[in-house]
This record gives sequence, structure tokens and C-alpha cells, in this order.
Amino acid sequence: MSTMRAVRVVGYHQNLEMADVEKPTPTGPFDVVVKIGGAGVCRTDLHILEGQWAEKSQVELPYTIGHENAGWVEAVGSAVTNVVEGDKVIVHPLITCGLCRACRSGDDVHCEANQFPGIDTNGGYAEYLKTSARSVVKIDDSLEPSDVAALADAGLTAYHAAAKAAKRLTPRDRVVMIGAGGLGHIGIQVMKSLSPAELIVVDRNPEALKLAEAIGADCGVMADGTQVQQVLDLTGGHGAEAVVDFVGEGGATAEGVAMLRGAGDYYVVGYGENIDVPTIDVVSNEINFIGNLVGSYNDLCDLMALAARGKVNLHTQKYQLDDFQSAITDLDNGNVRGRAILIP
Amino acid sequence: MSTMRAVRVVGYHQNLEMADVEKPTPTGPFDVVVKIGGAGVCRTDLHILEGQWAEKSQVELPYTIGHENAGWVEAVGSAVTNVVEGDKVIVHPLITCGLCRACRSGDDVHCEANQFPGIDTNGGYAEYLKTSARSVVKIDDSLEPSDVAALADAGLTAYHAAAKAAKRLTPRDRVVMIGAGGLGHIGIQVMKSLSPAELIVVDRNPEALKLAEAIGADCGVMADGTQVQQVLDLTGGHGAEAVVDFVGEGGATAEGVAMLRGAGDYYVVGYGENIDVPTIDVVSNEINFIGNLVGSYNDLCDLMALAARGKVNLHTQKYQLDDFQSAITDLDNGNVRGRAILIP
Amino acid sequence: MSTMRAVRVVGYHQNLEMADVEKPTPTGPFDVVVKIGGAGVCRTDLHILEGQWAEKSQVELPYTIGHENAGWVEAVGSAVTNVVEGDKVIVHPLITCGLCRACRSGDDVHCEANQFPGIDTNGGYAEYLKTSARSVVKIDDSLEPSDVAALADAGLTAYHAAAKAAKRLTPRDRVVMIGAGGLGHIGIQVMKSLSPAELIVVDRNPEALKLAEAIGADCGVMADGTQVQQVLDLTGGHGAEAVVDFVGEGGATAEGVAMLRGAGDYYVVGYGENIDVPTIDVVSNEINFIGNLVGSYNDLCDLMALAARGKVNLHTQKYQLDDFQSAITDLDNGNVRGRAILIP
Amino acid sequence: MSTMRAVRVVGYHQNLEMADVEKPTPTGPFDVVVKIGGAGVCRTDLHILEGQWAEKSQVELPYTIGHENAGWVEAVGSAVTNVVEGDKVIVHPLITCGLCRACRSGDDVHCEANQFPGIDTNGGYAEYLKTSARSVVKIDDSLEPSDVAALADAGLTAYHAAAKAAKRLTPRDRVVMIGAGGLGHIGIQVMKSLSPAELIVVDRNPEALKLAEAIGADCGVMADGTQVQQVLDLTGGHGAEAVVDFVGEGGATAEGVAMLRGAGDYYVVGYGENIDVPTIDVVSNEINFIGNLVGSYNDLCDLMALAARGKVNLHTQKYQLDDFQSAITDLDNGNVRGRAILIP
Repeated sequence: MSTMRAVRVVGYHQNLEMADVEKPTPTGPFDVVVKIGGAGVCRTDLHILEGQWAEKSQVELPYTIGHENAGWVEAVGSAVTNVVEGDKVIVHPLITCGLCRACRSGDDVHCEANQFPGIDTNGGYAEYLKTSARSVVKIDDSLEPSDVAALADAGLTAYHAAAKAAKRLTPRDRVVMIGAGGLGHIGIQVMKSLSPAELIVVDRNPEALKLAEAIGADCGVMADGTQVQQVLDLTGGHGAEAVVDFVGEGGATAEGVAMLRGAGDYYVVGYGENIDVPTIDVVSNEINFIGNLVGSYNDLCDLMALAARGKVNLHTQKYQLDDFQSAITDLDNGNVRGRAILIP
Repeated sequence: MSTMRAVRVVGYHQNLEMADVEKPTPTGPFDVVVKIGGAGVCRTDLHILEGQWAEKSQVELPYTIGHENAGWVEAVGSAVTNVVEGDKVIVHPLITCGLCRACRSGDDVHCEANQFPGIDTNGGYAEYLKTSARSVVKIDDSLEPSDVAALADAGLTAYHAAAKAAKRLTPRDRVVMIGAGGLGHIGIQVMKSLSPAELIVVDRNPEALKLAEAIGADCGVMADGTQVQQVLDLTGGHGAEAVVDFVGEGGATAEGVAMLRGAGDYYVVGYGENIDVPTIDVVSNEINFIGNLVGSYNDLCDLMALAARGKVNLHTQKYQLDDFQSAITDLDNGNVRGRAILIP
Repeated sequence: MSTMRAVRVVGYHQNLEMADVEKPTPTGPFDVVVKIGGAGVCRTDLHILEGQWAEKSQVELPYTIGHENAGWVEAVGSAVTNVVEGDKVIVHPLITCGLCRACRSGDDVHCEANQFPGIDTNGGYAEYLKTSARSVVKIDDSLEPSDVAALADAGLTAYHAAAKAAKRLTPRDRVVMIGAGGLGHIGIQVMKSLSPAELIVVDRNPEALKLAEAIGADCGVMADGTQVQQVLDLTGGHGAEAVVDFVGEGGATAEGVAMLRGAGDYYVVGYGENIDVPTIDVVSNEINFIGNLVGSYNDLCDLMALAARGKVNLHTQKYQLDDFQSAITDLDNGNVRGRAILIP
Repeated sequence: MSTMRAVRVVGYHQNLEMADVEKPTPTGPFDVVVKIGGAGVCRTDLHILEGQWAEKSQVELPYTIGHENAGWVEAVGSAVTNVVEGDKVIVHPLITCGLCRACRSGDDVHCEANQFPGIDTNGGYAEYLKTSARSVVKIDDSLEPSDVAALADAGLTAYHAAAKAAKRLTPRDRVVMIGAGGLGHIGIQVMKSLSPAELIVVDRNPEALKLAEAIGADCGVMADGTQVQQVLDLTGGHGAEAVVDFVGEGGATAEGVAMLRGAGDYYVVGYGENIDVPTIDVVSNEINFIGNLVGSYNDLCDLMALAARGKVNLHTQKYQLDDFQSAITDLDNGNVRGRAILIP
């Protein structure tokens, strides 16, 4: 039996631990084993350690954490035809069945029988990851796994929401993005690539706003208590045709709704608080709330096409896999700029 | 000066009063004066009398109430080309400008300079109504104004929501309608005309459910406390692809959301309570809330095309205009079956 | 080795021959072997025998013909999870890869690596057929394989085109269907289930028109040389918003285009002649030509949902498998009413 | 009576002539008189002089030519609310009724009662033009009428087609534009603003290709007889997801179709030859042909929003109105770079 190093959840409210575990091999016909080139460290990983996902995922401990992965194909199952050993790939976060109605409609995120490596089965804080032929996207020669790993989940989520919003936007429209952090700064780049609408970005951090404007925002708005009025002033008093909310807590939704024009669309991405809005306002303003969950395999392919052309760039802070605890600690303490990436 | 009889709001928390007022004439080039054939009595009229609309509408008292109107063209302004004297018409509830972006996009309900006869200017509890060329829809020879008047607002609202939902529904989908009352029973007929989806109707009134099934519902579900479970049972445990909520109060939204499948659409039509749902549920189920406000001129034309073919029928209870108080009282006491219509 | 009876193409311009051949077994992980309950006899089968497909399909002779199949699952490969032995299924005509962009988008008909049993590999004029988990649709208990087999290809093609057209049609629109034969009479039933538009059917056979009106056409128009004028008369001189052409030869396209309103859509389904239309007409009338090829797996699922509710019915004429030559001869001589079906 | 100078068609196959004519005034309630700031000289104007439009337009000679106009509002009719005297405007080429179904749907180009100044009534080679409130779009302070006049028709047509194509394109798609001349070079700028797809431009003029690449084309392809093969090589042998054809003659359509991928869309803009394609190819490749006619009022508003942000720039060659014959002669002799504009 061949082994590998892997970082594992051994208990909730406990530190992660490195262990030698069995190296995965393709057992099913569509299995693909990926040699990890980079694994993103996500705030969700902190929540897992706090036990927030325990009941929902029903995962059995210990298991290997890590759901933002990219690398090289190490081995493939008997029926895999889309990748071969050595291919450079990014890994869609879900393993999907390919046979249910959602999968057959390109909406594989709603697969009725999906698995989520790093959440409910072994993930990518390791040397190797077992995933599926349906989950690997070949990436451009110009891209490196450790640079793009965080596009697998954070980037994909931002792409999905921004692309959905962009579909309805025209050159006369305004779109507000609330939050220019990890997801937001990808969302800004995606929106500017996909849509001619004027882009207003709201954040409470002046540094984040400066970055937002540097990567494409037409206008940055400080969330200093006057942000609703500022957006109304920028939109002729009417509000914006769309709001993409990457925050979803701390009062963001109520403020975001106040920034929305009649017949406008509110894209919910970040979460935490409740949407709590009178039905009479939903009706009399005829506004919509649009949920957003990760993104499809097609979304990830589209995002990687943008990345290959240099249209989407991520800030990353790299750590050796052995140094996983530093990455976790830095993230927890707010000391990561961009995304922390583990490199085996 | 020619006069006519009109029923007017003379004060809030006071009864309506009949008065002799000036008969309207076309003063602007696009004005159309309609001889009323039928004017619907709507629950909103009761709310107006209770003063609920006073601040919002800023209407000056006294004025003529009534926003669901149909009749015959009596006179037209100099620039009107789409109708001539004698044409049988139904009247879209809004007078719209035709020049703003919304009007130019077929979305005239969001006209930036609209008027709402019966709400913020003189309406149709009268012998004549002044409206606009942009608001009159010629109706089929086979239809009578007094029979279709209530389609102008209640019917239009139900059409708008049902047609929007139908656009996304396929033969494998299920749609739940909550509420089989005034709007709901139109919504059922519209949905069956526009969509191949299976239609489940929820109501707490067994008579309403019997009617629902007679006019097209595939399945009626009693709202007896088990309705969420019943809908889940009818949908393989997944919930429905769409919910159209004509109630919007008394807990309907929370129950309705629980009946919704992942990636499903919730159409808000009725109102009263708040939508109060965790953003994490919006995200993790990736559901949407879709507001619905009246309907466009095009919606009304489409609805009248269905009505002309006998696909949409209304129950009406007719009153002479002089008998307006009986209609109001009957409505207030729950003694109207279908829609009360005033006939001058 | 287990054997079965199969009807094979042994040479072009030669009769089909019955032979004992190896009974298929699942060899790949996603293979599904179906015990045939009914196999449709299609005009394409005659074309195959005339050698029209020889170059295009590159099939090696002898092979088993038959591409419209339904039956019961006999055996499944190791990775099949969507059907089990004994399930009653209809078979989508293509075997698709599930991994290319088209397959991942629900547009599996454009799969880059598809196989077409009965055309380029062994088909269903046999006791058993080998297909894939991605190609089998479970059918309702109320449906029999021999009754629905012809929905697998002829019905699916009609559904695909009619459903695409229905997506854009409203109650005020008119749609013309040219041809009320095999595909057309399915198209009529589908269109009436999916769309509120007025349906005008054009055919030169009075019997076909009578059937068309019996199954849902609002109006039948004899193709007696005056059909263009008749359609213009029925549409206020403007033409129809959509034309679905199941004929595509003998001048149908030129006539069909003349029946089309400005900004209208022309759905090409039948084929034979060229579309030959001045670009200035395409531009000045701003019309569209929409190609249609079979239908997706999702289309077939949707069609079977309609069939399960009795909304789509096929006329069939059944033959024992041994009697295959009679079916072929009857079809060639125009002696089949509806669809000929072989039953092993 | 006040007079103005105007350039008129006095006979076919005769030169245009300058004349003193009555200055227009608002006579209808929605009339708007525009003081011309710039009037584009279009190839259609040459065709008018050759009599090609005589039968179609039924215009009575003499009349004032010129259908690409921009300027300042000089006077307005009694019911005009969207512009006031002095407003800087570009003029949509059609006067539309605002009341027919097309107008009510935002598709005003298909207005059942439209007028076309410069074609069937007096146009803009003059000091003043009478149009309608429904035809004027206020432009940004930063834009000058003489710079943007040609966007009113040539630019609008390119915008309409490119925007329609962009709606369906994703980052992984390729779009081919045939023709990088007057319309094409606007189309390129619009496409890059609206779509993330890779843009391949085909032209036979190396200068045009150089310009194309300078303003956004990802790749220029010389139309030297190998252009189909070059496009196939650039698209992995599959062809492009969309082709926008600004030429439509000289074999462009046959070549364009050969550049199109299965399930692809062919946008017909330029015209001259016939589309002549076997229905079997339309079906087996499932391709679509999409007609394009000018653009709506909304399209023009959107285009002017792009222009205001500097995203769309036109090359113009300006002439005094008195010098109209030089402009016509230069255009006829191929001596205009970009668009010739007359300035009163």
C-alpha cells in the first residue's frame, strides 16, 4: 500500500493534524486521482473545525479537509476519456452523478447524489485527491495550479453570480456589488469581462475600494453609513438595476434592497442574516431575490477561459502543506491578503 | 357643461357618495373617454376607504373611485389612432407616458410618470372614465364589458404572475398555487392554458378546491396544517419547481418556501406579511423570490385573447351603479361570490 | 454464447435478413442491455437500404438496423445507477459521452463522440439492444413499449421543434405547421399541450387535415395552391409569428416563408430541398430560420411525461419481428397508417 | 413663412439639388423639430438616386434625402415631455406609432405604421428635420452631433446585430465577423464591450484588418480564398459558435456557413446574394439564420451609453452641407474613410 501525507480533521474544536494515509487510486470507472498542486484555505474550513458542518455533512472523522483544489492528473479509471495522466487540471468542488435531471440539464450543482470532497469525504489538503472525470477541467498551459486553485470554489461562486447578473444587464444599467473581499474582487473582474453595465462597488475598507477601482469598478462607495444615499445619488435617485451581495450579514441585505431600483434583481451570495422584507415591497417594487450556490462545471470552464486570457487574477499567499497550521492561523487572525494556498 | 353620475370618496372612514360631476372629455391628444359597461369592486377599494392609500396616492378628495373598468369608447383625442368611437374596450389600470425607458421596453407598469385612475385620479364607478389611448384594449365581439371588467386588474395580476411562471415550466415540472380565490381561480385557468406542468392548488376552503379542480387543477390540497407535507408527498419529497403565492399572509410564505424544490422559483403576488428567510437557505437551496405587480398592456392583450377563446372565465355578481353601497357591503361581509361588478 | 434473432442489413439494394447473432451483454460500466418491446420502422430505414447513409455512417455490414426502440432493462453495467433490471424504458436514439461541452450543457444531441444504434452500430430490429445508461428513460406504468417506441425518434424530433417554437409563442400568436403526417401529428399534440397560440395546419391530404383538427389544430388549410393566401387571410394579411415545417421539400420552404410575419421564426424540421431566400428578405423582414435535429434526452423525458398523461397519442400498426419484410414493404408502398412497429 | 436650405432628390439618375424649402414646425402633438448638427451620407443614399427604392418607398419627388441625423431640439409639439428646446439629440431613423403591438413590445422597428425620414418623407440633408418625440435620444454632454450622426443608422444596425449575438456568447465561444468596414468596425467595438467571446474578423483588406485588431479583434483573417480553412484552424476544426455577416454578397454566406459550428447562429446583416443552403444541412448541423434590421430605440439608447463612455468611436470625414455633391462623389468613388458627414 502506497501512502501520502494528508491534513485531517480529527475532532471539532481541535487543531487539524497531519497523518500518513493511503494514497487514493481509481476504483470506479470514472475516478480521477489528482496530484495536488495547490489547495485553497477557505473560511469554510474554519467553520468545519468549529463543528458548524458536522450535522449537515454527516462526515465521519477523521477525514481530509480541503475543497479548493488544482493539480495534475495522476491516474484515471477505466472509462475516463476526457483527461489523461499528466494533464493540468482545476477540480470542480462537487462529484456529480451525471444521470439525474439536474446533471442532464447542465445544472450539476443540484445533482441529487453529489459528494463534496473536503466537506463530506476526503479533500485536498493532501498530496493526492480522488475526484471524478466529471469534475476535472483542463487548464491553459499558461496557468499554474497553485495560482488558480482558489478559483475552484471562491472564484467559481463569484463567477456564477456575476455571470447570472450580467446576462440581464445592458450598457444603460448600473450594478452594485456589496463587498470587495475574496469573492468580490473576483466578481468585479468577471462582471467587467461579461457586462457593459456601470459597476458600483460598496465596501467599508478603503483599501478594498482602491483595489476594486484598480481592477475595474467604475465607482467605489465607502460603507460609512451613507452608502444607500450615495448609491441613490449615483443612480439618479432610482437605485441600481441589480445588486450582487457578497456579504449577506450585518444589515447588508436591508441596505442592498434600499439600493435596488423597481423591477431590479438582488443576487444573494454571501449569507448570515435573514432576508426580512415586507411582501408589499416585493410586490409594489416588483423586485426579485436570486439565490446563488457555487457554480456549474460549465461556469468553471468559462471562468478558466477568462483566466487563461488574463482577465481574472487572484492574490495568493502560499504555504507549504506542512505549514498548514500557519495558514489556518493567519486566516483566522485576518492576516491573509487574497487567498491562502497550501502547496504539497 | 354635461354632467354624469359618479361614486366618490368624500372622506376616509366615511361611506362613498353618489354625485353629479362633470362628464370627462378628451383634452389631451391621446385622451380616450370610455362609457363604462362594468366596474369591478375590489378589496383595494375597501382599503382606500380605510385611508390605507391616502399618503401613498396623495389623492385630493373628493374623487371618483374604481380601477377595474371596461366599456365602449365614447370620444377620443386628436392623435388617437388605435380606437374609434363605439369600440368595445377593456381599460388597463394605469395611464402611462409611452416615453420613459420602461414604457419603451414593454414594461409600462414601471412607467416613471404613470397615473392610476381610481387610486390617484378619477376612476370608473361612474358613467364615464377618462383614460389614454395607451390604456385601451379592444375586446372580442363575443365578450361583454360587464363580464370582463374584473380582468382589468385582478385578472391581469393573476395573468402576469402565472405567465411569468409558465415561461420556465416543462411537462415534468410541478407548480403549486397557494390560494384559489379571486386571483387564484384566474391564475389556475391561465396556468393550464400556458403550461404543461402539473398544477397543485392549496386552499383552506373545500369549495374553492372543488372549483379549482373543476377549472383545471390537477390536484387540490387542503390547507389544514398538513399542506406542506402533502405537497412534498406529491412531489417525491423534493418540493415543486415553482410556487405562485396569491395569499402572502398568515404564514403562507414560510409554508410556501417549504414546498419549494432546490433551484425553485417563488412568485410573490399576494401580500401582507414579511418574507423572512435565512440567506443561507436562499443560497444553499439556490431559490428565487420573484415579485409581481399588476401586468403590462401586452399581458392584458394576451389575457383578452385567452378570454375570447373561452379559456378564462370569471364568476361575477352584478349591481346597478346606484346600488354601489350594497356591493361594498357585500364584499366587506364576504357575501360576494367571484367579483362584484357595478353597471351604470 | 447466448444468441438472439436480429434483422440485418447485409448489403445495399438488398433485402434485410434475419440471423442468429450474439446476444449483447454489458461490457462497459455504463452499458444497458434492453429487451426490445417494440422497434419503429422509419423511412430512414428505407434510405439506409438504398445506401444513402453508407458513406456518412461508415457502418460495416452486416449490422442490425432499427433506431426507434423501447422495452425492458435486461442487464446493466457496473456503474449504472438510474435503472435496474426489469425497468420499462424508451431508448434515446443516441449514445452520448456525457463529458463533452454539449453533453455537459444538456445539448447531448451535439455530443462530439456519439454513436447512433441502427445507423452506425447495431440497432433494435432484434430481441435485445445494447445502449447506455445515458440513453434510457423510464416510462410510466401506464405505457407499453410497443405503443411508444416511435416516440423515441419521430416523436422526439417533433417534440423538440414544437417545444422550441412554443417557448416564444403567446396567446395572440399564430403558428403554422406544414405537414400533418407522422411527425406533424405528434407536433400538433405537443404544440397544443405547450402553447396557447392559435394553430393552423397545412397539408394536401384532407384525411390528414381532419385528423389534425380532431387532435387539436384550430384550423386546417388544404395545400391546394392557395395555401399561402389562406394563411395570410387567417392572419390579417400579416402572416404567422412562427412556421414549423415538417416537409422541407416540394416548394414547402418558399411557401412557408411567404406565410411568415415580419420578425417571425421558421423552424426547419423536414428536409429535401434548399432554403433559397434573398438576404435582403431575411434582413428587411428580420426573419429567422431555426434548424432542428432530433431532440435531447431531456426532450424525451418531457415527451414521455406528456405521454403518461395521455396528451400525446400515436397510431401504430404492429408486426411480429419475423414479419419484418411486410412492415418494410407496407411502408415503402404507403400502406402504413401511423407508424409500423416490430414486436419480437 | 420661414425657409431653410435642403438637399433634395429631384429625379432618379439625376444629381441631388439644393433648394430653399419651408422650415418644418411641429404640427402634431408629438412632433419634434431638430436643428441638424450632422447628417451621415450612406450608401443607401446612392441607391436611392439610382431609383432602387422608388417603388418600395413610393416617395413623391422632390423630397429631402438623409436618414442619419443628430443635432439640437429646435421646437416641440404640445405633448412632448421627454426633450426640450436646446437638448442635444441623436435621431432614431424611424418615426413609429407607439400604439401597435410591436411598438408596445419595445420592437418599434416593426411598427405597423412607421415613417422613414430620408427614405419615404423629408430627411436630414437640411438645416432642420421634423421627427417625433419617440425618435429622439438625448446624448451625453461629451458627444457632438456631427461626430455621432452616423451611429443613428449604420452604428445602430451594427449594435443591434452584435448585441443580439452577444446575448448568447460565453467566454469559451468564438464569434466571426465578416467585413470590417463601416458597420463592421462599429460591430467590433460593440462586441468587445458586450461579450467575452473570442472575436475573429474576416476581411479582404489588410488595412481594415489592421484597424480591426487595433479596436478589439482578437484575430484578423485575410479573405484570400483560405479564410474558411483559417477559421476552422482557429476553432479546433469545429467552426465558430456565431458568425455575424456584414457583407452578405459575393459568396460571403456560403463561406460564412462553412465557418459555423453545429448548433451555431448565423447573423445576416449585409445583403445582396441569396442564402442558398440545403435543408438537410440546416437540420443535420442544427444551425440558425438570424435576420437583423436596423435596431430599436432602446438599442440606440444603449449604443449612446457606450459612446458616452468612449467605447465606440467612428471615423468621420466632414463636409459643409453646401458641399454635398463632393461627399456623394467621394463616397461613390471609394474616397471616404469612415463615414462622410454633412454639416449645415
